[in-house]
Amino acid sequence: MFTKETYVSRRNRLKKQVGSGLIVLLGNEQSSMNYKDNWYHFRQDSTFLYFFGIDRAGLVAVLDVEDDTEIIFGDELTPDDIVWMGPQKSIREQASEIGVGVTKPISTLDSYFQDALAKKREIHFLPPYRPENLLKLSSWLQTSPASIKSIVSVPLIKAVVAQRSIKTPEEVVEIEKGINTTGEMLKTAALLARAGMTEAELAGQLQAIAIKDGGDLAFPTILTVNGQILHNHYSSAQLQAGQLVLVDCGAASSMHYSGDMTRTFPVNERFSNQQKEMYEVMMTAYEQAVAMLKPGVRYKDVHLQACASLVDGLKQFGLMKGDTQEAVSQGAHALFFPCGLGHMLGLDTHDMEDLGEEYVGYAEDQQKSNQFGLKSLRLARALEPGFVLTVEPGLYFNPDLIDLWAGEKMHADFINYDKVANYKDFGGIRIEEDFLITPEGSRLLGNPVPRNMEEFRSSAG
Amino acid sequence: MFTKETYVSRRNRLKKQVGSGLIVLLGNEQSSMNYKDNWYHFRQDSTFLYFFGIDRAGLVAVLDVEDDTEIIFGDELTPDDIVWMGPQKSIREQASEIGVGVTKPISTLDSYFQDALAKKREIHFLPPYRPENLLKLSSWLQTSPASIKSIVSVPLIKAVVAQRSIKTPEEVVEIEKGINTTGEMLKTAALLARAGMTEAELAGQLQAIAIKDGGDLAFPTILTVNGQILHNHYSSAQLQAGQLVLVDCGAASSMHYSGDMTRTFPVNERFSNQQKEMYEVMMTAYEQAVAMLKPGVRYKDVHLQACASLVDGLKQFGLMKGDTQEAVSQGAHALFFPCGLGHMLGLDTHDMEDLGEEYVGYAEDQQKSNQFGLKSLRLARALEPGFVLTVEPGLYFNPDLIDLWAGEKMHADFINYDKVANYKDFGGIRIEEDFLITPEGSRLLGNPVPRNMEEFRSSAG
Repeated sequence: MFTKETYVSRRNRLKKQVGSGLIVLLGNEQSSMNYKDNWYHFRQDSTFLYFFGIDRAGLVAVLDVEDDTEIIFGDELTPDDIVWMGPQKSIREQASEIGVGVTKPISTLDSYFQDALAKKREIHFLPPYRPENLLKLSSWLQTSPASIKSIVSVPLIKAVVAQRSIKTPEEVVEIEKGINTTGEMLKTAALLARAGMTEAELAGQLQAIAIKDGGDLAFPTILTVNGQILHNHYSSAQLQAGQLVLVDCGAASSMHYSGDMTRTFPVNERFSNQQKEMYEVMMTAYEQAVAMLKPGVRYKDVHLQACASLVDGLKQFGLMKGDTQEAVSQGAHALFFPCGLGHMLGLDTHDMEDLGEEYVGYAEDQQKSNQFGLKSLRLARALEPGFVLTVEPGLYFNPDLIDLWAGEKMHADFINYDKVANYKDFGGIRIEEDFLITPEGSRLLGNPVPRNMEEFRSSAG
Repeated sequence: MFTKETYVSRRNRLKKQVGSGLIVLLGNEQSSMNYKDNWYHFRQDSTFLYFFGIDRAGLVAVLDVEDDTEIIFGDELTPDDIVWMGPQKSIREQASEIGVGVTKPISTLDSYFQDALAKKREIHFLPPYRPENLLKLSSWLQTSPASIKSIVSVPLIKAVVAQRSIKTPEEVVEIEKGINTTGEMLKTAALLARAGMTEAELAGQLQAIAIKDGGDLAFPTILTVNGQILHNHYSSAQLQAGQLVLVDCGAASSMHYSGDMTRTFPVNERFSNQQKEMYEVMMTAYEQAVAMLKPGVRYKDVHLQACASLVDGLKQFGLMKGDTQEAVSQGAHALFFPCGLGHMLGLDTHDMEDLGEEYVGYAEDQQKSNQFGLKSLRLARALEPGFVLTVEPGLYFNPDLIDLWAGEKMHADFINYDKVANYKDFGGIRIEEDFLITPEGSRLLGNPVPRNMEEFRSSAG
C-alpha cells in the first residue's frame, strides 16, 4: 500500500480532470474455474488498485465529482465467514485507510443507480473486460450488455491513462521489485534447464520463485523450445540438448506491479554457430533501439529502427537482400519479426491494455497500421519521462509461415527463401528488458541480469 | 482422451435418459485476469470434457435428441493465428475423433436458437457458473440473465449426475494418476518444510510437481499454519519450528481428474504431546468412518459416526463432556469440526458441485440440515459402487469461534470451555484420503502415502 495521501491525491486529480458526473470504478470478482467456489487466484482490477489500493474481491467505487463524495460499495463478512476465512479487516476500515469515509452494501447499488438515472446524472465507466462486470453495468444502467461498449466514457479513459502512464518514483520502486524477482527466475531457468526435464517442470520452478514472498506471476510464463510460436506457454515435452529455450516471464510484486523479461539460451550445450549469429543480429537491434530511448522520440520510430537493424543483420547472412528501408516499409522483415518491439509496463504487463491501445499506445494523430507485423505494435507514441516500457526484439523462424510466404513468393525481392529454408528448424529467440524514460534518456530497470545466459551458466560452473 | 466409443456411448445414454428436445452443453471460455488477453490457465467445463473430451476454449455442443444430430459450434483458427499459436488440430478433426460429424461457426448459433425458439423446441441446459455462459444463454434464449436460473433443466442435471456419479474403471485409473501426484506433493511438503521458509515458497514447490507432467493443480493449495481457518490458502509468513502445517492439495491428471488429500505435521520438531493426542483422536474418527464405507450406507451416517468418534476422543481429554450422541445431535462437536466429512471426487474436486448439491450429494428424500456444521455436509446419500469420495475428518481450534461460543455459553452442557481455552493456539489438523466404493466395501485409491508425516520424515532421515 502507498500512503493515504497518495490515493487521495490520485482521486482528486482524476475528479478534476473528468470534471463532472459520477465516476464508477469496478473492482474484480473472484473468477470460477470449474464450479462456482473453485476460484482462480484473485486478481484485482489495476485501475481500482491505482485509485484505492484495496486488494479484495467484490467492491465497487463511485466518485461523485459534483458533490465530492466518495463511496465504496461492498459486503462485510458475516460471523459464519470467521470459520472459513478467519478474522479480516472490515471494508470500512480498509476504505478509511485510503481516505474513503463512506461504505455501503452491494444491495444498495441498484437504488443508487436508479436515483442517478432518474436525475439524469452523467455516469462515467471504463470498458469492462470481465463478463460479470459487463452484467453489472448492464443491470445498473438498464441497457443491454451489447450496448455497454458504445457508452464507455472516453474522458474517464483519457484521465486514467494520463495518470497511470507517468510512473511515480514509488511506483518505479515497486516495478523494480517485480523485475528483480523476474531476473532471479531467468537466472534460475538458465542454471536448472537440462535435457530430460519438461518445459512445465522448469516453468513450475520459476512460478515457485514468483510466489514465495507474496508476489505472483504477472502473466502465464512462456517457456518453450518453440519460441517461434509467439504465444506458446509450456508443455510436458522434454528439453533436448542443444535446443534453444525461450523464457519470457514476469513476476508481479505483492502490490501487483509487473516485471517482464525474456532470455533465450541453448539447453546444456553452447550456442551453435547459427544460433550465435542470429543472437548477435538480435542484440544489435536491441542495442540500437535502446540507444534511441528518450523523451520526444516516437516509439514507432524505435520499432522501425530495430526492424531495419534486423534486416541489416539478416542481409549479412544472406537471408534477406535489397534496400533495408524499403524492406521494412513494405513489411518484409515481419516474416522474422511479426510483432511489436514493446509495450507500456506497470500494474499490468501490457499496461492499461483494457483501456484501449488507441488511448494508451498511440497519439491522437497516429493511425495504427494494418500491415502484418506493424499492426501488432502496442506502443507508438512519443515517449515521455516517467513512461516504463519493454524493449523486446526477436527473430522467429516459423516453418508454417515460411512455407506460406515462400509459396506465395511474398516479398521475394527482399527474402532469399532458399537460404531461409536452412533455418526452418531454428526456433525463435528474443531478448527483453524493461526501461524507465528519464528526462535525459532512459534507465534500465532492476538489477542487471546477464544477457548471454550461456556465458552466465558457464561462469556459474 | 478416452476412445471415440466411450464418448459416443456416454452421449447416447444421455440423450436416451433426457428423452426429448435439444441438449445444450457449453464449454468454457478463456478467463481474463487484469485485461482481456491476459488469461488465467484454461479450464474446460467438466461435463463438456465428460461427453466430448475436447480441451479447447470457446465451444458449444448441441445434441438434438429427436433427430439424433450432434453439432459442435466453434471458430476454426485463422491463418494469422499460426504466428501466435502454431499449427493446431482443427475443431472439425477434434470433433470427428470423438464421433461428432458436424461443426459450425459460433456466428451461426444465434440463428440456430432463433429457429429452435420459433419451433418451440424444448431446450435443456445446465446451470451456468461462469458469467460469460450466462450471458450467452440469456442472448440465445432471449430472456434476462436473472431468469436463466429458473429455467435450467432438472432432467438434464439428473441425467448428467446419474452418469458422472458412477466412475468407470478407466476413470478410476485417471483419478489415481491425480492422487499419486498429490501423494508426491504431500511427501515433498513433509520433507522440504523447515523453519524460515514461507508458506508460499513451499506451496510453489508443490505446484511445480503438479504441473511438471502436463497436469495441474485441481484447486488452490491450502498450506497453512492456521489450519483452523478452513479456507486459508498460503501466505508469505515464515514457518516456525513446532508449528503444525496443514497441507490440503490436489493434482489433476492431464485429463483433469482430481486428487484431493490432506496431511498435517509439525515444522522441524516432533509432535508435542497435545498435538499427538489430538492427532490420535482424529485418526480414530477417520478409521471408524472408513470402516463403514460400503454400498447402501448413507454417507450422512458415516459423517455422524465420525463426529461421535471425535466427541468421544475430546471427552477423553476433557474438552467435551456429556452424552456423545446427544452432543452430536445438537451440533456441539461443530465447534471443533464445523464442516462435512467429505464429498464426491472426479473431474471436479467437489465433483459436479456446479450441478447442485441437492442432486449430487442428497437423495430426493433427504433434506439438507440447517444446523451449523451439518449444513456444510456436501455428501449425504446412500453410497453406490463406483462412487469416488473423500474422507476428511479434522479438529479445528478457531480462537474467534471459541470466544464467540464461550461468550454465549453455547452447548455448555457438552463443552468444557475452561479446558478448551488451553487449545486456542493449537491451530487445526486434518487427514484426507480418497476412496472408491466397491461392491463389497471400499478401496483406498492411489499408492499409500504415510499418514503420519512426522514419522515418515524421521525415517527418510
